[in-house]
Amino acid sequence: MIVDTLAIVGTGLIGGSFALALKQAGAVGEVLGAGRSPAKLTLARELGLIDRAVDWKQAGQADCILLALPVGDTGSVLKQLAPHLKPGAIVTDAGSTKASVVEAARAALGARFADFVPGHPIAGSELSGPGAARADLYQGKRVVLTPQADTRADALATVRLLWETAGALVETLDAVQHDRIFAAVSHLPHLAAFALVDALAQRADGETFFRFAAGGFRDFTRIAGSSPEMWRDIALTNHEALLNELDAYLATLQTLRLAVSEKDGDALLNIFSRARAARENWIETQDS
Amino acid sequence: MIVDTLAIVGTGLIGGSFALALKQAGAVGEVLGAGRSPAKLTLARELGLIDRAVDWKQAGQADCILLALPVGDTGSVLKQLAPHLKPGAIVTDAGSTKASVVEAARAALGARFADFVPGHPIAGSELSGPGAARADLYQGKRVVLTPQADTRADALATVRLLWETAGALVETLDAVQHDRIFAAVSHLPHLAAFALVDALAQRADGETFFRFAAGGFRDFTRIAGSSPEMWRDIALTNHEALLNELDAYLATLQTLRLAVSEKDGDALLNIFSRARAARENWIETQDS
Repeated sequence: MIVDTLAIVGTGLIGGSFALALKQAGAVGEVLGAGRSPAKLTLARELGLIDRAVDWKQAGQADCILLALPVGDTGSVLKQLAPHLKPGAIVTDAGSTKASVVEAARAALGARFADFVPGHPIAGSELSGPGAARADLYQGKRVVLTPQADTRADALATVRLLWETAGALVETLDAVQHDRIFAAVSHLPHLAAFALVDALAQRADGETFFRFAAGGFRDFTRIAGSSPEMWRDIALTNHEALLNELDAYLATLQTLRLAVSEKDGDALLNIFSRARAARENWIETQDS
Repeated sequence: MIVDTLAIVGTGLIGGSFALALKQAGAVGEVLGAGRSPAKLTLARELGLIDRAVDWKQAGQADCILLALPVGDTGSVLKQLAPHLKPGAIVTDAGSTKASVVEAARAALGARFADFVPGHPIAGSELSGPGAARADLYQGKRVVLTPQADTRADALATVRLLWETAGALVETLDAVQHDRIFAAVSHLPHLAAFALVDALAQRADGETFFRFAAGGFRDFTRIAGSSPEMWRDIALTNHEALLNELDAYLATLQTLRLAVSEKDGDALLNIFSRARAARENWIETQDS
Protein backbone atom coordinates (compact mmCIF):
# COMPACT_ATOMS: atom_id res chain seq x y z
CA MET A 1 0.00 0.00 0.00
CA ILE A 2 1.34 3.44 -0.96
CA VAL A 3 -1.27 5.63 0.78
CA ASP A 4 -3.99 4.62 3.21
CA THR A 5 -6.56 7.14 2.06
CA LEU A 6 -6.81 8.70 -1.40
CA ALA A 7 -9.28 11.48 -2.15
CA ILE A 8 -10.36 12.26 -5.72
CA VAL A 9 -11.82 15.70 -6.36
CA GLY A 10 -13.66 15.34 -9.67
CA THR A 11 -14.61 11.71 -10.22
CA GLY A 12 -14.75 11.70 -14.03
CA LEU A 13 -12.62 9.91 -16.63
CA ILE A 14 -9.26 11.12 -15.30
CA GLY A 15 -9.87 10.93 -11.54
CA GLY A 16 -11.97 7.77 -11.75
CA SER A 17 -9.39 5.91 -13.85
CA PHE A 18 -6.61 6.88 -11.40
CA ALA A 19 -8.68 5.54 -8.47
CA LEU A 20 -9.59 2.31 -10.31
CA ALA A 21 -5.99 1.57 -11.30
CA LEU A 22 -4.66 2.12 -7.78
CA LYS A 23 -7.44 0.07 -6.19
CA GLN A 24 -6.77 -2.82 -8.56
CA ALA A 25 -3.06 -2.63 -7.73
CA GLY A 26 -3.79 -2.64 -3.99
CA ALA A 27 -1.89 0.65 -3.72
CA VAL A 28 -4.57 2.52 -1.74
CA GLY A 29 -6.82 1.67 1.20
CA GLU A 30 -9.95 3.79 1.09
CA VAL A 31 -10.85 6.05 -1.83
CA LEU A 32 -12.89 9.17 -1.03
CA GLY A 33 -14.68 11.22 -3.65
CA ALA A 34 -15.51 14.92 -3.59
CA GLY A 35 -16.96 17.32 -6.15
CA ARG A 36 -19.80 19.66 -7.00
CA SER A 37 -22.11 17.14 -8.62
CA PRO A 38 -23.96 14.79 -6.22
CA ALA A 39 -25.23 12.75 -9.19
CA LYS A 40 -21.68 12.19 -10.45
CA LEU A 41 -20.50 11.16 -6.98
CA THR A 42 -23.38 8.68 -6.62
CA LEU A 43 -22.54 7.20 -10.01
CA ALA A 44 -18.84 7.03 -9.11
CA ARG A 45 -19.72 5.09 -5.95
CA GLU A 46 -22.04 2.75 -7.82
CA LEU A 47 -19.30 2.07 -10.39
CA GLY A 48 -16.78 1.35 -7.61
CA LEU A 49 -14.51 4.26 -8.47
CA ILE A 50 -14.79 5.62 -4.91
CA ASP A 51 -15.77 4.05 -1.58
CA ARG A 52 -17.69 7.08 -0.31
CA ALA A 53 -18.55 10.67 -1.10
CA VAL A 54 -17.17 13.27 1.33
CA ASP A 55 -17.11 17.04 1.91
CA TRP A 56 -14.01 19.27 1.75
CA LYS A 57 -13.31 18.78 5.44
CA GLN A 58 -13.18 15.01 5.15
CA ALA A 59 -11.31 15.14 1.85
CA GLY A 60 -8.61 17.20 3.58
CA GLN A 61 -7.96 14.29 5.94
CA ALA A 62 -6.81 11.99 3.13
CA ASP A 63 -3.10 11.16 2.73
CA CYS A 64 -3.16 12.14 -0.92
CA ILE A 65 -5.67 14.30 -2.76
CA LEU A 66 -5.89 14.34 -6.57
CA LEU A 67 -7.65 17.25 -8.28
CA ALA A 68 -9.09 16.09 -11.62
CA LEU A 69 -11.08 19.14 -12.69
CA PRO A 70 -11.20 21.74 -15.44
CA VAL A 71 -8.00 23.72 -14.72
CA GLY A 72 -9.95 26.94 -14.17
CA ASP A 73 -11.42 25.47 -10.96
CA THR A 74 -8.04 24.66 -9.38
CA GLY A 75 -7.67 27.88 -7.35
CA SER A 76 -11.18 27.96 -5.89
CA VAL A 77 -11.13 24.27 -4.97
CA LEU A 78 -7.72 24.53 -3.32
CA LYS A 79 -8.93 27.55 -1.31
CA GLN A 80 -11.84 25.53 0.04
CA LEU A 81 -9.60 22.56 0.76
CA ALA A 82 -6.64 24.43 2.31
CA PRO A 83 -8.02 24.99 5.85
CA HIS A 84 -8.83 21.28 6.20
CA LEU A 85 -5.56 19.72 5.02
CA LYS A 86 -4.12 17.40 7.64
CA PRO A 87 -0.37 17.66 8.36
CA GLY A 88 1.65 15.84 5.72
CA ALA A 89 -1.25 15.46 3.28
CA ILE A 90 -0.05 15.54 -0.33
CA VAL A 91 -2.05 17.41 -2.97
CA THR A 92 -1.60 16.83 -6.69
CA ASP A 93 -3.53 17.62 -9.84
CA ALA A 94 -4.15 16.38 -13.37
CA GLY A 95 -4.62 19.68 -15.18
CA SER A 96 -3.57 20.10 -18.80
CA THR A 97 -1.80 23.42 -18.17
CA LYS A 98 0.77 23.85 -15.43
CA ALA A 99 2.09 27.42 -14.99
CA SER A 100 -1.33 28.81 -14.08
CA VAL A 101 -2.04 25.83 -11.80
CA VAL A 102 1.24 26.39 -9.96
CA GLU A 103 0.37 30.08 -9.53
CA ALA A 104 -3.15 29.32 -8.30
CA ALA A 105 -1.86 26.62 -5.93
CA ARG A 106 0.79 28.92 -4.49
CA ALA A 107 -1.83 31.59 -3.80
CA ALA A 108 -4.36 29.18 -2.31
CA LEU A 109 -2.07 26.95 -0.26
CA GLY A 110 0.44 29.46 1.12
CA ALA A 111 2.89 27.64 3.40
CA ARG A 112 1.39 24.29 2.39
CA PHE A 113 2.40 24.83 -1.26
CA ALA A 114 5.43 22.55 -0.65
CA ASP A 115 2.95 19.66 -0.40
CA PHE A 116 1.55 20.33 -3.87
CA VAL A 117 2.84 18.26 -6.83
CA PRO A 118 1.67 19.66 -10.19
CA GLY A 119 0.94 16.87 -12.66
CA HIS A 120 -0.50 16.17 -16.11
CA PRO A 121 -1.39 12.68 -17.36
CA ILE A 122 -1.12 12.53 -21.18
CA ALA A 123 -4.10 10.27 -21.53
CA GLY A 124 -7.74 10.81 -22.16
CA SER A 125 -10.51 10.23 -24.55
CA GLU A 126 -13.24 12.28 -26.13
CA LEU A 127 -15.49 10.47 -23.62
CA SER A 128 -15.87 11.93 -20.16
CA GLY A 129 -17.61 11.29 -16.84
CA PRO A 130 -17.43 8.44 -14.29
CA GLY A 131 -18.82 5.93 -16.81
CA ALA A 132 -15.79 6.43 -19.06
CA ALA A 133 -13.25 5.58 -16.32
CA ARG A 134 -11.14 2.44 -16.78
CA ALA A 135 -8.31 0.88 -14.79
CA ASP A 136 -5.97 0.66 -17.80
CA LEU A 137 -6.32 4.25 -19.05
CA TYR A 138 -2.76 5.16 -17.98
CA GLN A 139 -1.05 1.93 -19.02
CA GLY A 140 2.05 2.90 -20.98
CA LYS A 141 1.00 6.57 -21.11
CA ARG A 142 3.20 9.50 -20.13
CA VAL A 143 2.56 11.57 -17.02
CA VAL A 144 4.43 14.86 -16.72
CA LEU A 145 5.13 16.26 -13.24
CA THR A 146 6.33 19.88 -12.95
CA PRO A 147 7.73 20.15 -9.41
CA GLN A 148 8.86 23.58 -8.18
CA ALA A 149 12.04 24.43 -6.29
CA ASP A 150 10.15 24.26 -2.98
CA THR A 151 8.12 21.10 -3.71
CA ARG A 152 8.69 18.51 -0.96
CA ALA A 153 10.90 15.70 -2.33
CA ASP A 154 8.97 12.93 -0.58
CA ALA A 155 5.62 14.28 -1.85
CA LEU A 156 7.04 14.22 -5.39
CA ALA A 157 8.31 10.66 -4.85
CA THR A 158 4.91 9.45 -3.60
CA VAL A 159 2.99 11.01 -6.50
CA ARG A 160 5.49 9.57 -8.97
CA LEU A 161 5.10 6.11 -7.40
CA LEU A 162 1.29 6.33 -7.56
CA TRP A 163 1.33 7.15 -11.28
CA GLU A 164 3.90 4.43 -11.99
CA THR A 165 1.71 1.97 -10.11
CA ALA A 166 -1.18 3.05 -12.34
CA GLY A 167 0.98 1.99 -15.28
CA ALA A 168 2.29 5.38 -16.42
CA LEU A 169 5.75 6.53 -17.55
CA VAL A 170 6.56 9.55 -15.39
CA GLU A 171 8.71 12.46 -16.57
CA THR A 172 9.44 15.84 -15.02
CA LEU A 173 9.48 19.11 -16.93
CA ASP A 174 9.67 22.80 -16.15
CA ALA A 175 6.09 24.11 -15.93
CA VAL A 176 6.58 26.84 -18.54
CA GLN A 177 8.29 24.42 -20.93
CA HIS A 178 5.41 22.00 -20.35
CA ASP A 179 2.90 24.65 -21.34
CA ARG A 180 4.83 25.60 -24.48
CA ILE A 181 5.05 21.98 -25.58
CA PHE A 182 1.41 21.16 -24.95
CA ALA A 183 0.21 24.37 -26.57
CA ALA A 184 1.81 23.00 -29.74
CA VAL A 185 1.05 19.28 -29.62
CA SER A 186 -2.34 19.31 -27.91
CA HIS A 187 -4.00 22.67 -27.30
CA LEU A 188 -3.56 24.06 -30.82
CA PRO A 189 -4.70 20.79 -32.49
CA HIS A 190 -7.87 20.91 -30.39
CA LEU A 191 -8.56 24.51 -31.39
CA ALA A 192 -7.85 23.67 -35.03
CA ALA A 193 -10.32 20.76 -34.91
CA PHE A 194 -13.03 22.78 -33.15
CA ALA A 195 -12.57 25.56 -35.73
CA LEU A 196 -12.77 23.14 -38.64
CA VAL A 197 -16.03 21.62 -37.48
CA ASP A 198 -17.47 25.00 -36.58
CA ALA A 199 -16.59 26.54 -39.94
CA LEU A 200 -18.54 23.71 -41.55
CA ALA A 201 -21.46 23.79 -39.10
CA GLN A 202 -21.91 27.54 -39.58
CA ARG A 203 -22.75 27.27 -43.26
CA ALA A 204 -26.34 27.38 -44.41
CA ASP A 205 -25.95 24.13 -46.36
CA GLY A 206 -23.82 22.44 -43.69
CA GLU A 207 -25.96 19.31 -43.57
CA THR A 208 -25.38 18.43 -47.22
CA PHE A 209 -21.70 18.90 -46.61
CA PHE A 210 -21.54 16.73 -43.50
CA ARG A 211 -23.30 13.96 -45.44
CA PHE A 212 -20.21 13.47 -47.57
CA ALA A 213 -17.66 13.67 -44.79
CA ALA A 214 -15.75 10.41 -44.44
CA GLY A 215 -13.16 8.63 -42.34
CA GLY A 216 -10.48 11.29 -42.66
CA PHE A 217 -12.85 13.92 -41.36
CA ARG A 218 -13.87 11.64 -38.49
CA ASP A 219 -10.26 11.13 -37.43
CA PHE A 220 -9.32 14.75 -37.87
CA THR A 221 -12.20 16.02 -35.79
CA ARG A 222 -12.36 13.35 -33.09
CA ILE A 223 -10.83 15.75 -30.58
CA ALA A 224 -13.59 18.29 -31.34
CA GLY A 225 -15.80 15.91 -29.34
CA SER A 226 -13.92 16.83 -26.16
CA SER A 227 -15.39 18.77 -23.23
CA PRO A 228 -15.97 22.44 -24.16
CA GLU A 229 -15.57 23.60 -20.53
CA MET A 230 -12.25 21.81 -20.14
CA TRP A 231 -10.90 23.31 -23.36
CA ARG A 232 -12.15 26.81 -22.55
CA ASP A 233 -10.16 26.63 -19.32
CA ILE A 234 -7.07 25.31 -21.07
CA ALA A 235 -7.24 28.04 -23.72
CA LEU A 236 -7.62 30.73 -21.03
CA THR A 237 -4.94 29.48 -18.65
CA ASN A 238 -2.35 28.81 -21.37
CA HIS A 239 -3.27 31.72 -23.57
CA GLU A 240 0.21 33.14 -24.16
CA ALA A 241 1.78 29.92 -25.39
CA LEU A 242 -1.37 29.09 -27.31
CA LEU A 243 -1.38 32.46 -29.11
CA ASN A 244 2.21 31.85 -30.21
CA GLU A 245 1.26 28.45 -31.63
CA LEU A 246 -1.90 29.80 -33.24
CA ASP A 247 0.17 32.48 -34.96
CA ALA A 248 2.69 29.92 -36.22
CA TYR A 249 -0.17 27.79 -37.54
CA LEU A 250 -1.88 30.78 -39.18
CA ALA A 251 1.43 31.67 -40.84
CA THR A 252 1.81 28.13 -42.24
CA LEU A 253 -1.78 28.20 -43.48
CA GLN A 254 -1.14 31.56 -45.15
CA THR A 255 1.92 30.09 -46.87
CA LEU A 256 -0.25 27.22 -48.11
CA ARG A 257 -2.97 29.67 -49.15
CA LEU A 258 -0.48 31.63 -51.22
CA ALA A 259 0.79 28.44 -52.88
CA VAL A 260 -2.77 27.39 -53.73
CA SER A 261 -3.75 30.81 -55.09
CA GLU A 262 -0.58 31.04 -57.19
CA LYS A 263 -0.95 27.40 -58.28
CA ASP A 264 2.57 26.78 -57.06
CA GLY A 265 2.68 22.98 -57.20
CA ASP A 266 6.32 22.74 -56.12
CA ALA A 267 5.69 24.72 -52.94
CA LEU A 268 2.66 22.57 -52.10
CA LEU A 269 4.55 19.34 -52.76
CA ASN A 270 7.37 20.62 -50.59
CA ILE A 271 5.18 21.34 -47.57
CA PHE A 272 3.11 18.17 -47.91
CA SER A 273 6.22 15.99 -48.28
CA ARG A 274 7.97 17.60 -45.30
CA ALA A 275 4.86 17.13 -43.16
CA ARG A 276 4.43 13.51 -44.18
CA ALA A 277 8.07 12.72 -43.47
CA ALA A 278 7.88 14.39 -40.05
CA ARG A 279 4.75 12.45 -39.16
CA GLU A 280 6.28 9.16 -40.32
CA ASN A 281 9.37 9.79 -38.20
CA TRP A 282 7.15 10.49 -35.24
CA ILE A 283 5.02 7.37 -35.75
CA GLU A 284 8.20 5.27 -35.85
CA THR A 285 9.35 6.58 -32.49
CA GLN A 286 5.88 5.92 -31.08
CA ASP A 287 5.81 2.31 -32.20
CA SER A 288 9.29 1.45 -31.02
CA MET B 1 -20.55 -10.63 -65.82
CA ILE B 2 -20.92 -6.87 -66.30
CA VAL B 3 -17.93 -6.26 -68.61
CA ASP B 4 -15.68 -8.77 -70.33
CA THR B 5 -12.52 -6.73 -70.10
CA LEU B 6 -11.69 -4.09 -67.52
CA ALA B 7 -8.57 -1.94 -67.75
CA ILE B 8 -7.12 -0.19 -64.73
CA VAL B 9 -4.80 2.76 -65.36
CA GLY B 10 -2.95 3.24 -62.08
CA THR B 11 -2.90 -0.02 -60.15
CA GLY B 12 -2.57 1.39 -56.63
CA LEU B 13 -4.94 1.34 -53.65
CA ILE B 14 -7.96 2.75 -55.50
CA GLY B 15 -7.62 0.99 -58.86
CA GLY B 16 -6.38 -2.27 -57.36
CA SER B 17 -9.23 -2.46 -54.84
CA PHE B 18 -11.79 -1.83 -57.60
CA ALA B 19 -10.31 -4.67 -59.67
CA LEU B 20 -10.14 -7.07 -56.71
CA ALA B 21 -13.76 -6.42 -55.68
CA LEU B 22 -15.08 -6.96 -59.22
CA LYS B 23 -13.00 -10.09 -59.75
CA GLN B 24 -14.26 -11.57 -56.49
CA ALA B 25 -17.83 -10.77 -57.51
CA GLY B 26 -17.33 -12.40 -60.92
CA ALA B 27 -18.36 -9.10 -62.53
CA VAL B 28 -15.39 -8.88 -64.92
CA GLY B 29 -13.60 -11.32 -67.19
CA GLU B 30 -10.02 -10.22 -67.77
CA VAL B 31 -8.42 -7.30 -65.90
CA LEU B 32 -5.71 -5.38 -67.75
CA GLY B 33 -3.32 -3.00 -66.01
CA ALA B 34 -1.58 0.05 -67.45
CA GLY B 35 0.57 2.78 -65.96
CA ARG B 36 3.94 4.46 -65.93
CA SER B 37 5.64 2.26 -63.37
CA PRO B 38 6.69 -1.22 -64.58
CA ALA B 39 7.54 -2.21 -61.00
CA LYS B 40 4.06 -1.32 -59.79
CA LEU B 41 2.47 -3.27 -62.66
CA THR B 42 4.59 -6.33 -61.88
CA LEU B 43 3.59 -6.14 -58.22
CA ALA B 44 -0.07 -5.69 -59.18
CA ARG B 45 0.11 -8.85 -61.28
CA GLU B 46 1.88 -10.81 -58.55
CA LEU B 47 -0.80 -9.76 -56.08
CA GLY B 48 -3.56 -10.81 -58.48
CA LEU B 49 -4.98 -7.29 -58.93
CA ILE B 50 -4.57 -7.52 -62.71
CA ASP B 51 -4.20 -10.43 -65.13
CA ARG B 52 -1.64 -8.75 -67.39
CA ALA B 53 0.13 -5.46 -67.98
CA VAL B 54 -0.67 -3.73 -71.27
CA ASP B 55 0.21 -0.59 -73.26
CA TRP B 56 -2.20 2.25 -74.14
CA LYS B 57 -3.21 0.58 -77.37
CA GLN B 58 -4.28 -2.63 -75.68
CA ALA B 59 -5.88 -0.77 -72.77
CA GLY B 60 -8.08 1.09 -75.29
CA GLN B 61 -9.55 -2.23 -76.38
CA ALA B 62 -11.10 -2.89 -72.95
CA ASP B 63 -14.87 -2.54 -72.46
CA CYS B 64 -14.36 -0.29 -69.46
CA ILE B 65 -11.29 1.69 -68.47
CA LEU B 66 -10.84 3.14 -64.96
CA LEU B 67 -8.33 5.92 -64.40
CA ALA B 68 -7.05 5.81 -60.82
CA LEU B 69 -4.31 8.41 -60.88
CA PRO B 70 -3.38 11.75 -59.34
CA VAL B 71 -6.01 14.05 -60.92
CA GLY B 72 -3.32 16.20 -62.54
CA ASP B 73 -2.45 13.29 -64.88
CA THR B 74 -6.01 12.84 -66.20
CA GLY B 75 -5.65 15.00 -69.31
CA SER B 76 -2.32 13.63 -70.54
CA VAL B 77 -3.35 9.99 -69.96
CA LEU B 78 -6.66 10.47 -71.79
CA LYS B 79 -4.86 12.09 -74.71
CA GLN B 80 -2.63 9.02 -75.04
CA LEU B 81 -5.59 6.67 -74.69
CA ALA B 82 -8.04 8.49 -76.98
CA PRO B 83 -6.76 7.29 -80.39
CA HIS B 84 -6.94 3.67 -79.24
CA LEU B 85 -10.44 3.56 -77.72
CA LYS B 86 -12.55 0.86 -79.33
CA PRO B 87 -16.15 1.76 -80.29
CA GLY B 88 -18.42 1.65 -77.25
CA ALA B 89 -15.60 1.54 -74.69
CA ILE B 90 -16.52 3.30 -71.46
CA VAL B 91 -13.97 5.46 -69.64
CA THR B 92 -14.37 6.48 -65.99
CA ASP B 93 -12.11 7.91 -63.30
CA ALA B 94 -11.64 7.99 -59.55
CA GLY B 95 -10.26 11.50 -59.10
CA SER B 96 -10.98 13.54 -55.97
CA THR B 97 -11.89 16.68 -57.92
CA LYS B 98 -14.37 16.68 -60.74
CA ALA B 99 -14.79 20.01 -62.59
CA SER B 100 -11.17 20.03 -63.79
CA VAL B 101 -11.36 16.33 -64.70
CA VAL B 102 -14.49 16.97 -66.79
CA GLU B 103 -12.74 19.83 -68.54
CA ALA B 104 -9.60 17.78 -69.22
CA ALA B 105 -11.64 14.81 -70.45
CA ARG B 106 -13.71 16.99 -72.78
CA ALA B 107 -10.54 18.42 -74.31
CA ALA B 108 -8.78 15.06 -74.63
CA LEU B 109 -11.68 12.89 -75.78
CA GLY B 110 -13.54 15.24 -78.12
CA ALA B 111 -16.47 13.35 -79.69
CA ARG B 112 -15.82 10.40 -77.38
CA PHE B 113 -16.49 12.53 -74.28
CA ALA B 114 -20.02 11.03 -74.12
CA ASP B 115 -18.36 7.74 -73.11
CA PHE B 116 -16.67 9.31 -70.09
CA VAL B 117 -18.28 8.94 -66.64
CA PRO B 118 -16.59 11.17 -64.02
CA GLY B 119 -16.48 9.45 -60.60
CA HIS B 120 -15.07 9.80 -57.10
CA PRO B 121 -15.05 6.95 -54.57
CA ILE B 122 -15.13 8.34 -51.00
CA ALA B 123 -12.81 5.72 -49.65
CA GLY B 124 -9.14 5.51 -49.10
CA SER B 125 -6.47 5.20 -46.54
CA GLU B 126 -3.21 6.93 -45.74
CA LEU B 127 -1.66 3.80 -47.25
CA SER B 128 -1.11 3.65 -50.99
CA GLY B 129 0.24 1.38 -53.73
CA PRO B 130 -0.78 -2.10 -55.00
CA GLY B 131 0.05 -3.72 -51.65
CA ALA B 132 -2.64 -1.64 -49.91
CA ALA B 133 -5.46 -2.80 -52.23
CA ARG B 134 -8.26 -4.86 -50.70
CA ALA B 135 -11.49 -6.29 -52.07
CA ASP B 136 -13.64 -4.74 -49.33
CA LEU B 137 -12.34 -1.16 -49.53
CA TYR B 138 -15.59 0.15 -51.05
CA GLN B 139 -17.99 -1.90 -48.93
CA GLY B 140 -20.65 0.51 -47.67
CA LYS B 141 -18.69 3.55 -48.89
CA ARG B 142 -20.14 6.34 -51.03
CA VAL B 143 -19.15 6.83 -54.65
CA VAL B 144 -20.13 10.12 -56.28
CA LEU B 145 -20.65 10.20 -60.06
CA THR B 146 -20.91 13.59 -61.78
CA PRO B 147 -22.38 12.85 -65.23
CA GLN B 148 -22.66 15.71 -67.72
CA ALA B 149 -25.64 16.55 -69.97
CA ASP B 150 -24.00 14.66 -72.84
CA THR B 151 -22.82 11.61 -70.88
CA ARG B 152 -24.18 8.40 -72.44
CA ALA B 153 -26.93 6.98 -70.20
CA ASP B 154 -25.88 3.37 -70.65
CA ALA B 155 -22.24 4.20 -69.85
CA LEU B 156 -23.45 5.86 -66.62
CA ALA B 157 -25.60 2.82 -65.81
CA THR B 158 -22.70 0.40 -66.33
CA VAL B 159 -20.28 2.40 -64.16
CA ARG B 160 -22.93 2.70 -61.45
CA LEU B 161 -23.50 -1.07 -61.55
CA LEU B 162 -19.77 -1.78 -61.31
CA TRP B 163 -19.39 0.39 -58.19
CA GLU B 164 -22.52 -1.10 -56.62
CA THR B 165 -21.14 -4.57 -57.30
CA ALA B 166 -17.95 -3.49 -55.53
CA GLY B 167 -20.16 -2.75 -52.49
CA ALA B 168 -20.49 1.03 -52.81
CA LEU B 169 -23.47 3.36 -52.40
CA VAL B 170 -23.61 5.43 -55.57
CA GLU B 171 -24.90 9.02 -55.71
CA THR B 172 -24.81 11.60 -58.47
CA LEU B 173 -23.93 15.26 -57.97
CA ASP B 174 -23.24 18.27 -60.12
CA ALA B 175 -19.45 18.45 -60.66
CA VAL B 176 -19.10 22.00 -59.30
CA GLN B 177 -21.23 21.19 -56.26
CA HIS B 178 -19.09 18.09 -55.72
CA ASP B 179 -15.95 20.19 -55.72
CA ARG B 180 -17.41 22.73 -53.27
CA ILE B 181 -18.47 19.98 -50.85
CA PHE B 182 -15.19 18.09 -50.96
CA ALA B 183 -13.16 21.27 -50.64
CA ALA B 184 -14.87 21.66 -47.25
CA VAL B 185 -15.06 18.12 -45.89
CA SER B 186 -11.89 16.63 -47.33
CA HIS B 187 -9.47 18.97 -49.09
CA LEU B 188 -9.37 21.67 -46.41
CA PRO B 189 -8.99 19.11 -43.55
CA HIS B 190 -6.02 17.61 -45.38
CA LEU B 191 -4.40 21.03 -45.81
CA ALA B 192 -5.09 21.84 -42.16
CA ALA B 193 -3.45 18.59 -41.03
CA PHE B 194 -0.41 19.02 -43.29
CA ALA B 195 -0.04 22.60 -41.99
CA LEU B 196 -0.29 21.52 -38.37
CA VAL B 197 2.41 18.88 -38.69
CA ASP B 198 4.61 21.19 -40.75
CA ALA B 199 4.32 24.07 -38.27
CA LEU B 200 5.59 21.68 -35.61
CA ALA B 201 8.29 20.08 -37.76
CA GLN B 202 9.70 23.48 -38.71
CA ARG B 203 10.65 24.44 -35.17
CA ALA B 204 14.21 24.07 -33.99
CA ASP B 205 13.09 22.04 -30.95
CA GLY B 206 10.46 20.05 -32.87
CA GLU B 207 11.76 16.68 -31.68
CA THR B 208 11.15 17.45 -28.00
CA PHE B 209 7.66 18.56 -28.93
CA PHE B 210 6.81 15.48 -30.97
CA ARG B 211 7.92 13.32 -28.02
CA PHE B 212 4.91 14.48 -26.04
CA ALA B 213 2.35 14.23 -28.82
CA ALA B 214 -0.33 11.69 -27.97
CA GLY B 215 -3.38 9.95 -29.39
CA GLY B 216 -5.29 13.12 -30.23
CA PHE B 217 -2.40 14.36 -32.33
CA ARG B 218 -2.13 10.99 -34.05
CA ASP B 219 -5.82 11.04 -35.00
CA PHE B 220 -5.78 14.67 -36.05
CA THR B 221 -2.77 14.26 -38.29
CA ARG B 222 -3.41 10.79 -39.75
CA ILE B 223 -4.43 12.34 -43.05
CA ALA B 224 -1.10 14.20 -43.18
CA GLY B 225 0.34 10.77 -44.00
CA SER B 226 -1.41 10.85 -47.40
CA SER B 227 0.35 11.06 -50.77
CA PRO B 228 1.89 14.55 -51.29
CA GLU B 229 1.59 14.26 -55.10
CA MET B 230 -2.09 13.37 -54.94
CA TRP B 231 -2.84 16.29 -52.63
CA ARG B 232 -0.80 18.75 -54.65
CA ASP B 233 -2.91 17.87 -57.68
CA ILE B 234 -6.15 18.14 -55.70
CA ALA B 235 -5.18 21.56 -54.31
CA LEU B 236 -4.25 22.79 -57.79
CA THR B 237 -7.28 21.44 -59.63
CA ASN B 238 -9.81 22.54 -57.00
CA HIS B 239 -8.07 25.75 -56.05
CA GLU B 240 -11.06 28.12 -56.23
CA ALA B 241 -13.33 26.13 -53.93
CA LEU B 242 -10.37 25.33 -51.68
CA LEU B 243 -9.43 29.01 -51.33
CA ASN B 244 -12.99 29.79 -50.25
CA GLU B 245 -12.86 27.08 -47.60
CA LEU B 246 -9.38 28.10 -46.48
CA ASP B 247 -10.61 31.66 -46.02
CA ALA B 248 -13.63 30.52 -44.00
CA TYR B 249 -11.33 28.41 -41.83
CA LEU B 250 -8.85 31.26 -41.38
CA ALA B 251 -11.74 33.52 -40.34
CA THR B 252 -12.93 31.02 -37.72
CA LEU B 253 -9.37 30.65 -36.43
CA GLN B 254 -9.07 34.45 -36.22
CA THR B 255 -12.30 34.57 -34.20
CA LEU B 256 -10.87 31.95 -31.86
CA ARG B 257 -7.56 33.84 -31.70
CA LEU B 258 -9.38 37.01 -30.67
CA ALA B 259 -11.33 35.13 -27.98
CA VAL B 260 -8.10 33.63 -26.61
CA SER B 261 -6.23 36.94 -26.62
CA GLU B 262 -9.14 38.76 -24.93
CA LYS B 263 -9.63 35.84 -22.52
CA ASP B 264 -13.26 35.71 -23.58
CA GLY B 265 -14.31 32.42 -21.99
CA ASP B 266 -17.94 32.70 -23.08
CA ALA B 267 -17.01 33.09 -26.74
CA LEU B 268 -14.67 30.10 -26.53
CA LEU B 269 -17.27 27.96 -24.79
CA ASN B 270 -19.79 28.96 -27.43
CA ILE B 271 -17.64 27.89 -30.37
CA PHE B 272 -16.42 24.68 -28.72
CA SER B 273 -19.96 23.67 -27.71
CA ARG B 274 -21.39 24.41 -31.16
CA ALA B 275 -18.62 22.38 -32.80
CA ARG B 276 -19.06 19.44 -30.45
CA ALA B 277 -22.83 19.40 -31.00
CA ALA B 278 -22.40 19.52 -34.78
CA ARG B 279 -19.90 16.67 -34.69
CA GLU B 280 -22.15 14.57 -32.44
CA ASN B 281 -25.10 15.08 -34.79
CA TRP B 282 -22.92 14.03 -37.67
CA ILE B 283 -21.62 10.91 -35.90
CA GLU B 284 -25.20 9.86 -35.15
CA THR B 285 -26.16 10.05 -38.81
CA GLN B 286 -23.03 8.04 -39.68
CA ASP B 287 -23.83 5.23 -37.29
CA SER B 288 -27.47 4.91 -38.29
